[in-house]
Amino acid sequence: MLKNYLLSPGPTAVPERVLLAMAQPVIHHRTPQFSAVFADCAKRLKKLWQTKEDVIILSSSGTGAMEAAVANSFSKGEKVLVINSGKFGERWGQISESFGLEVVWMKLGWGQAADPSAIKAELDKDPDIKGVFMQATESSTTVKHPIKEVAQITRGRDLLFVVDGITGVGVFEIPMDDWGIDILVSGAQKAFMLPPGLAFIALSEKAWKKADEAKNSKFYLNLKKEKKNLANNTSAYTPAVTLINGLKEALDMFEEEGLDNVYKRTALHAKAVRAGCDALGLKNVTDSPSEAMTGVYLPEGVDGNKLVKTLRDNFGVTYAGGQDEWKGKIIRIAQLGYIGAFDVIIAISALEMALSKFGADIKLGTGVAAAEEVLKEGFGI
Amino acid sequence: MLKNYLLSPGPTAVPERVLLAMAQPVIHHRTPQFSAVFADCAKRLKKLWQTKEDVIILSSSGTGAMEAAVANSFSKGEKVLVINSGKFGERWGQISESFGLEVVWMKLGWGQAADPSAIKAELDKDPDIKGVFMQATESSTTVKHPIKEVAQITRGRDLLFVVDGITGVGVFEIPMDDWGIDILVSGAQKAFMLPPGLAFIALSEKAWKKADEAKNSKFYLNLKKEKKNLANNTSAYTPAVTLINGLKEALDMFEEEGLDNVYKRTALHAKAVRAGCDALGLKNVTDSPSEAMTGVYLPEGVDGNKLVKTLRDNFGVTYAGGQDEWKGKIIRIAQLGYIGAFDVIIAISALEMALSKFGADIKLGTGVAAAEEVLKEGFGI
Repeated sequence: MLKNYLLSPGPTAVPERVLLAMAQPVIHHRTPQFSAVFADCAKRLKKLWQTKEDVIILSSSGTGAMEAAVANSFSKGEKVLVINSGKFGERWGQISESFGLEVVWMKLGWGQAADPSAIKAELDKDPDIKGVFMQATESSTTVKHPIKEVAQITRGRDLLFVVDGITGVGVFEIPMDDWGIDILVSGAQKAFMLPPGLAFIALSEKAWKKADEAKNSKFYLNLKKEKKNLANNTSAYTPAVTLINGLKEALDMFEEEGLDNVYKRTALHAKAVRAGCDALGLKNVTDSPSEAMTGVYLPEGVDGNKLVKTLRDNFGVTYAGGQDEWKGKIIRIAQLGYIGAFDVIIAISALEMALSKFGADIKLGTGVAAAEEVLKEGFGI
Repeated sequence: MLKNYLLSPGPTAVPERVLLAMAQPVIHHRTPQFSAVFADCAKRLKKLWQTKEDVIILSSSGTGAMEAAVANSFSKGEKVLVINSGKFGERWGQISESFGLEVVWMKLGWGQAADPSAIKAELDKDPDIKGVFMQATESSTTVKHPIKEVAQITRGRDLLFVVDGITGVGVFEIPMDDWGIDILVSGAQKAFMLPPGLAFIALSEKAWKKADEAKNSKFYLNLKKEKKNLANNTSAYTPAVTLINGLKEALDMFEEEGLDNVYKRTALHAKAVRAGCDALGLKNVTDSPSEAMTGVYLPEGVDGNKLVKTLRDNFGVTYAGGQDEWKGKIIRIAQLGYIGAFDVIIAISALEMALSKFGADIKLGTGVAAAEEVLKEGFGI
């Protein structure tokens, strides 16, 4: 008998009440009943984006919303700056190139955060750059990028600042309008506590205007069409009905807890996981860690691929390992989404026992003790 | 946001797959489809009882099966010996008295296990005693009674040995036929991992014979009627259909894990919880603890009622407190049923943090470290 705990940074665990909401009978999507749910969700998403603009709900993975950003607000031949600090930064560039954009790659070392002054220098040097693409959190490296600071550089220029907030919205505050972000996208299977299958995207007035002139091809991911349909409380194409029911429930949960408390909880758990890892002598992979997750280097001699497999299959705990150059060398533990204090305890307890199984020099309980010292705060101790 | 963990010794947590089985559409109970499920469950329950006799499924709480034992195999005026070492021992006596039996109370101190030689002395002294009633585990005190040893004394005498295995069957081995138990009852919401609402009872050949002559009143809990119906793969009255569907799934889980492994897992977790409590300086309430649960005294000055309430409402972890003379003084933590290694970790982590919140002198992590040292075994470390 093995109980399973999903502690990967996406997909994240789905709360029981969201599962129950999704188990409701499927209603037809062209009905006033479904339209009420759909419109309500779209309206409430604005609070998470902190925007007066529409948040469009797409039935796709997060990558669909990334493509929508490129396809709707840019044209073939336009030059864009892509901050590439990992798998998902690279994806911005790949999408842009596949739509015929000219990509200026700003390649960073893995674990490195974007440097706003370097971005400023690049934009000052090249006024043809019509877009800056980056991540709020680069999930492959656990890095949090300085979105606010970059927005201060991009706003006022003749370009769009496009942020992948798939691992960001619902994790920490990203006030789109205030900061001056032009396009902010997110997805279901991260802080939204939903199964994969929905993506979200909001465009600033400037981004919508640019969309009027953009010539790239799009059909399923046509945002202007979706905006028009949303005005009628519906979507252009058949939406993922059960996931929308789940989204409504997840938004209820956000409202009941209060967004500020969601951010605080996530940040406290990040602190606790890091304290636990520190106590076990596991070095963080970055100096700029996101609250969404924690990435640490594994001790010399521990095969990360085997460790992650053993944790999943023998301990029942699913973490994420490393990708590309970090494959087998790191482990990533989620704090975003439906994570409570005892998930942190499980994460550290399983990690210390598994490391011990793999021969690492670990004093059992050390990590949990350090994590508890941080978690105390949340229990008013 | 608070995640809830049910770590009380009954009701216990219900596995996801059992919940899903119970969410199936209700089918009519007088159909071949339901009869197949019902008969299959009854047949497979015999493995848990290790009996060739029928195991009758009652739609009632465990107390219903206790009453069925008294009502079906005894008659008004008969003398019975009741081992009363807590709330549930007392209940055997109360049921017996309400059916007009003459109860010889063997009252033990709370936390004390039955002494077979004292029982032997009582039976030798009074040959009129027609029944001996006790618990496999007295849940109110966490005590495990020496069923096998008592059975060696009772078998061969002109009396029935009646065992409440509500907290026992599925926790550790109770081979009814081998040991010579005459009536063995159990219930759904303990090791069976089901919501409350089902009870189970098996009678030895001797007990069925006595039932032929017994004159006590019974209607809903008429076991001879149920036995006759079971021969036709059905029940006398409307059964709790969804719970039977859940029972089938739970029995599948037992078979997949293997009963021996279920017993081993439960025993290992008991050892781990006890190691954790020991490390925290919490004294066990008994020298004869059941594998089903662990009861420990709380430190001086800690109000157990408040502690249990805080653990439930602020930590999301439900334990059981003490009853009657132990009210507010002890805490009981479950190991039976759907409990994995990380439930043990949660149990001890929550307990050490909560005790710390209540001012006890606790070094955080101490309990978890000790528990992990025991749990290692289960992970092959």
